Amino acid sequence: MRELADLTRDDVADLAARSVLVLPVGAVEQHGPHLPLITDTMIVCTVAQRAVTALGDRVPTVLAPTLPFGHSEHHLFACAASLKPATLTAVLSDLIESLHTSGFTRFFLINGHGGNDETVRSVSKSIVNRLPVAVATANYWQLGGPGAPPRDGADVPGHAGWWETCLAMATRPELVHTEKFTAEPLGPRGLHSYEPTPGLNVQRHGEWARSGGTTDPAAGAAGMIGAAIIQAKVDGLVDALVRFDELTGSTR
Amino acid sequence: MRELADLTRDDVADLAARSVLVLPVGAVEQHGPHLPLITDTMIVCTVAQRAVTALGDRVPTVLAPTLPFGHSEHHLFACAASLKPATLTAVLSDLIESLHTSGFTRFFLINGHGGNDETVRSVSKSIVNRLPVAVATANYWQLGGPGAPPRDGADVPGHAGWWETCLAMATRPELVHTEKFTAEPLGPRGLHSYEPTPGLNVQRHGEWARSGGTTDPAAGAAGMIGAAIIQAKVDGLVDALVRFDELTGSTR
Amino acid sequence: MRELADLTRDDVADLAARSVLVLPVGAVEQHGPHLPLITDTMIVCTVAQRAVTALGDRVPTVLAPTLPFGHSEHHLFACAASLKPATLTAVLSDLIESLHTSGFTRFFLINGHGGNDETVRSVSKSIVNRLPVAVATANYWQLGGPGAPPRDGADVPGHAGWWETCLAMATRPELVHTEKFTAEPLGPRGLHSYEPTPGLNVQRHGEWARSGGTTDPAAGAAGMIGAAIIQAKVDGLVDALVRFDELTGSTR
Amino acid sequence: MRELADLTRDDVADLAARSVLVLPVGAVEQHGPHLPLITDTMIVCTVAQRAVTALGDRVPTVLAPTLPFGHSEHHLFACAASLKPATLTAVLSDLIESLHTSGFTRFFLINGHGGNDETVRSVSKSIVNRLPVAVATANYWQLGGPGAPPRDGADVPGHAGWWETCLAMATRPELVHTEKFTAEPLGPRGLHSYEPTPGLNVQRHGEWARSGGTTDPAAGAAGMIGAAIIQAKVDGLVDALVRFDELTGSTR
Amino acid sequence: MRELADLTRDDVADLAARSVLVLPVGAVEQHGPHLPLITDTMIVCTVAQRAVTALGDRVPTVLAPTLPFGHSEHHLFACAASLKPATLTAVLSDLIESLHTSGFTRFFLINGHGGNDETVRSVSKSIVNRLPVAVATANYWQLGGPGAPPRDGADVPGHAGWWETCLAMATRPELVHTEKFTAEPLGPRGLHSYEPTPGLNVQRHGEWARSGGTTDPAAGAAGMIGAAIIQAKVDGLVDALVRFDELTGSTR
Amino acid sequence: MRELADLTRDDVADLAARSVLVLPVGAVEQHGPHLPLITDTMIVCTVAQRAVTALGDRVPTVLAPTLPFGHSEHHLFACAASLKPATLTAVLSDLIESLHTSGFTRFFLINGHGGNDETVRSVSKSIVNRLPVAVATANYWQLGGPGAPPRDGADVPGHAGWWETCLAMATRPELVHTEKFTAEPLGPRGLHSYEPTPGLNVQRHGEWARSGGTTDPAAGAAGMIGAAIIQAKVDGLVDALVRFDELTGSTR
Repeated sequence: MRELADLTRDDVADLAARSVLVLPVGAVEQHGPHLPLITDTMIVCTVAQRAVTALGDRVPTVLAPTLPFGHSEHHLFACAASLKPATLTAVLSDLIESLHTSGFTRFFLINGHGGNDETVRSVSKSIVNRLPVAVATANYWQLGGPGAPPRDGADVPGHAGWWETCLAMATRPELVHTEKFTAEPLGPRGLHSYEPTPGLNVQRHGEWARSGGTTDPAAGAAGMIGAAIIQAKVDGLVDALVRFDELTGSTR
Repeated sequence: MRELADLTRDDVADLAARSVLVLPVGAVEQHGPHLPLITDTMIVCTVAQRAVTALGDRVPTVLAPTLPFGHSEHHLFACAASLKPATLTAVLSDLIESLHTSGFTRFFLINGHGGNDETVRSVSKSIVNRLPVAVATANYWQLGGPGAPPRDGADVPGHAGWWETCLAMATRPELVHTEKFTAEPLGPRGLHSYEPTPGLNVQRHGEWARSGGTTDPAAGAAGMIGAAIIQAKVDGLVDALVRFDELTGSTR
Repeated sequence: MRELADLTRDDVADLAARSVLVLPVGAVEQHGPHLPLITDTMIVCTVAQRAVTALGDRVPTVLAPTLPFGHSEHHLFACAASLKPATLTAVLSDLIESLHTSGFTRFFLINGHGGNDETVRSVSKSIVNRLPVAVATANYWQLGGPGAPPRDGADVPGHAGWWETCLAMATRPELVHTEKFTAEPLGPRGLHSYEPTPGLNVQRHGEWARSGGTTDPAAGAAGMIGAAIIQAKVDGLVDALVRFDELTGSTR
Repeated sequence: MRELADLTRDDVADLAARSVLVLPVGAVEQHGPHLPLITDTMIVCTVAQRAVTALGDRVPTVLAPTLPFGHSEHHLFACAASLKPATLTAVLSDLIESLHTSGFTRFFLINGHGGNDETVRSVSKSIVNRLPVAVATANYWQLGGPGAPPRDGADVPGHAGWWETCLAMATRPELVHTEKFTAEPLGPRGLHSYEPTPGLNVQRHGEWARSGGTTDPAAGAAGMIGAAIIQAKVDGLVDALVRFDELTGSTR
Repeated sequence: MRELADLTRDDVADLAARSVLVLPVGAVEQHGPHLPLITDTMIVCTVAQRAVTALGDRVPTVLAPTLPFGHSEHHLFACAASLKPATLTAVLSDLIESLHTSGFTRFFLINGHGGNDETVRSVSKSIVNRLPVAVATANYWQLGGPGAPPRDGADVPGHAGWWETCLAMATRPELVHTEKFTAEPLGPRGLHSYEPTPGLNVQRHGEWARSGGTTDPAAGAAGMIGAAIIQAKVDGLVDALVRFDELTGSTR
Repeated sequence: MRELADLTRDDVADLAARSVLVLPVGAVEQHGPHLPLITDTMIVCTVAQRAVTALGDRVPTVLAPTLPFGHSEHHLFACAASLKPATLTAVLSDLIESLHTSGFTRFFLINGHGGNDETVRSVSKSIVNRLPVAVATANYWQLGGPGAPPRDGADVPGHAGWWETCLAMATRPELVHTEKFTAEPLGPRGLHSYEPTPGLNVQRHGEWARSGGTTDPAAGAAGMIGAAIIQAKVDGLVDALVRFDELTGSTR
């Protein structure tokens, strides 16, 4: 695994033109009473590191330091270290632009937090109009197979519910407060967490607070299930990187 | 159908608190050699007007003037009247903010153009953190049923391909240049137009020009098919408005 | 009349270099108890369409979709769908810039709302420093002759007073609530509505609310008078387009 | 004459609530081969100082330091120290906002440069929506009587032509290069310098350079004429300040 | 002394490429009960004028008009005419950029106010990445020798304390209210005014108000001491300009 | 050591009001041919972790995830992942603002990169005017004693020279390419790296490239020396945190 952090400028001069720069994007925000603030960053970082390691030399990749902070304004009813959408847009654009000046032409933004989704996509669409680069984006949870069947009634991926709790337990179990798991939801289902009818998305002021800040109860979560899911996502990211390299490697 | 345009200030004072403000968002951009620049705006406007009319008094709605321009930088290889993402963000935020000052608390942004999708969603998520409002968003093509089976190989919704051409023919056939229909694609398939592997999105500099500016050939498009599809989308929007009203009407 | 909306990309490729792109800019805001919110947009749109039609082939023009929203913060005491000045600046700049990329080099911004005046002018002055274009601007009410003698005491153009009411009655009489006409002003004269001494302009917090939101009473307004005024403005815009074409056509 | 510069914080605490804060806004830009870059700033500063002095105690005024720089991008073909429109907007807004926090509620922006006109007006209209203040604006050349009959063919006020040269000679004659006066224009008449038909304004890329950077020849300019004009403008500003005080003094 | 204000465009065309453009940056803000708001601007302007005069032809300099306003938000508890950091950044960037377009390539920003320090430095570092220019920056109080030994306990330079009062008395004694001098501080020492431990800087909400708005008492201040200090700073600026010219003159 | 990353929302609710939030700010940029891009981030992160650990319970601290990216535009001649100054300003402001909403009132920004210095300070000065918080800032290299005598001729801290190389060797020696150490400088001394005369700072376009990208040769650097220096900086940061807590703990 080649990390941008560890390279010298000479290494970059040698590698940039032919490599895919992988940039994980996380978030620091409340994840219910039982998960740590770092949950999203920790999981996406794990998935990215494992995928890049698994790839080996099949695709030339350089893994950038994870951006630990994302857009989490909706979690400020409890706590978050949040970037506004315009700030996150500027951060991602600046990073791609400066790394392009440094020689990279292919970027893969692997996202770990739903609140970043629109901004990550928007930056990718916009920056290719200005710079001669290719930019792949993916939410890690949408890659690969399911890994394990979801618990009945669990939102996938949801927020701080059964699914994400499984993944956190598989990653850093010592940070998961299993004694705070509940079998009942912490509040009514948030309008933001599902499509009331296909294609319809609803946002409402104060909704995250009303919902208790999680999408579904953590009860039943287990590290072994999380490990299976993570493996599926790692496989999915490996596949996506291979695909991206095939599609953009020869024509650039 | 109540249009914001036609109301007086006294009407607004009477209606705003209980009504859903419906704002269609379009685009003015190249749609291949055969469709007019206004295609997206024209279709979303039609769907919105027909849905609001069909609703009658079941849901109190006020239909705002369509924003005719959207984010279309990727079509500037040929032509577009395009707003930058930050500008479109500001426009939508300003409109919701000022209409909220005017008394509205529920908004439904019905989008007619893929390039607006991330911005429309991002605004909806962000503004509910600042203002005590509920904001629904939907891409018209994701609402309701398919209406008609797609031609084999057609992208749905695609861009200026068979599907969109059907809808344009059902809306303003006199603007459709059937003599320019082709049976073959105008270029290689654009990386932006599909997920090379599930969950993977790829954007690349110059890709829209390379692809010829459409996703698939228009051959076989017909107004009757378009009419069936539009009806399905109108039904879907009616349903979404009813659902949004049920979910947000009583608790506000 | 050639409308940008109706053109294909091939039409634009053919027309852009030699045509004047006409962009009407409107507003959606309170117009007293008797006029619809759309008054400004509706009138400027009418004037622009009729002028472009009347011109025929004398000047090659392409009429863009009207921007329905303008800067109307001062009307938020009652209601408006308003863009902030920086937003309106961005919208107009983006539209000119993208249409210039699409091939146009001559633009005519025809403005329908006093609150847009400074922004429209400022954009025109600023953008010609960046782009090789010519930009004409005009407030429709300042073009051509008076059309009809103003009622005694009426502000011309004023806001939602006798003059504008005449024009609205000539355009869409069904939207004018004649039963709400008054013979007396709705409040004291607003400091913003006149120069207390030549060259002096005064703006004051809350002044629009204090004034009742109109500059002078609507009593006596009539569609026939409005029709004469509109005809004068249409003639004025025709003349301005001819003049602009003469001045910029041969040297570009 | 009370200058903000000379006051202590205790003086401001005593004066702010009842005084009009007068802020002159200038420009530093090419004024042909014969006038100094500071021409606009120098004249508006002179007019403001003389008017405030002449007023004496009739109106409580505090004269702020002149903002020496304005928006002069169009003069960069030769030379200027210029603020972009968004920067000038921010400067004027910040100054009014901070001085309002400091206790002032009435502001008079006296402008000395055509290129600032739209921005000065726009700020005045916009800021009263946010802050409980009254803001007067005026271009000094539009106040009071003509002072002296203009030379035949001279643009009033024009730019670096006969009229402005007279005023510069009346202010700081040692900075005026009379040996560079010409009787002929330095280039064709700039489209920006007149209304080709009433109500029509035209801006064109490169036009200021083509025009030679002045609106009309300086020949015939004389300090005595300039002195008469300046006196008229001082009288006009005195009158405007009295009027503004009458209109806003009692009701605040 | 050559002042930009007094030059014509032909003078600039002749001088710009070889000259150093000197731009003083000041502030308008409360300086305790005894000093005028203009203190910083007045002193930096004096130092700059005297240094440029003393230099004579040794270094080709052009002195720009002083920017009278700086970043003084922290003094708004009493009074200030303040630019926000982003505004001051834009002003300085715009001025350098436009003067570079006008032919200058070497700039010396001489700063008179602590609150501007970070912004001035940041602009100098940033703009050289975009434009082929050299930019020197200095706080006048850090140039040259001390000039005179500071009073025991006086902060150097401090804010509105003994040191700055000396300089104000040497510059415009008529503006200094000696009757308001105190021997005791006006409040507890502000955390912003010293490093509690080397390398540590602390800012706290409301701290300037708590401190009484000055860093130390004015008692004992004298014009003669101020004159000696100013002379030292003038000598320091002369030296800095010579040094800057040596370092950047030959290689450009 | 309490890390924000590991806390749950309940932990934050318990700790925020009384704790100091410590935020390390780094950079990813070229550090000569021998040091990794991550050098600044790695060192500041190490210093911060060790100081917070050493403090134990003496001061209640919460250590935030390190911001790995800073302002490094000047290193783009070789390579960097850089945020523009306005972006870095937004990131730091957003983080403080959101963490303040989450309950924190005391922040300590520990900076690891010279190019961030002005922005970090500027944010701290500015944000305390808006929010009721205290913000400490420090560059780690300016805290505590020297730790070890610098090699003759070495810049302290310099950039990628002897001093920083020592620290990198003490932190992650496996990332230091000792075989690329040189005894001679890689280019002429950069104007940005010293004060040519006290108080004078000079920035010049292209200077970093001319200088070879380091301030002085790495020859002679040793991990043992670096360890002593780091210990001194850790001690300095411990001292600064104790001091900050004493100064702001009781009065808040």
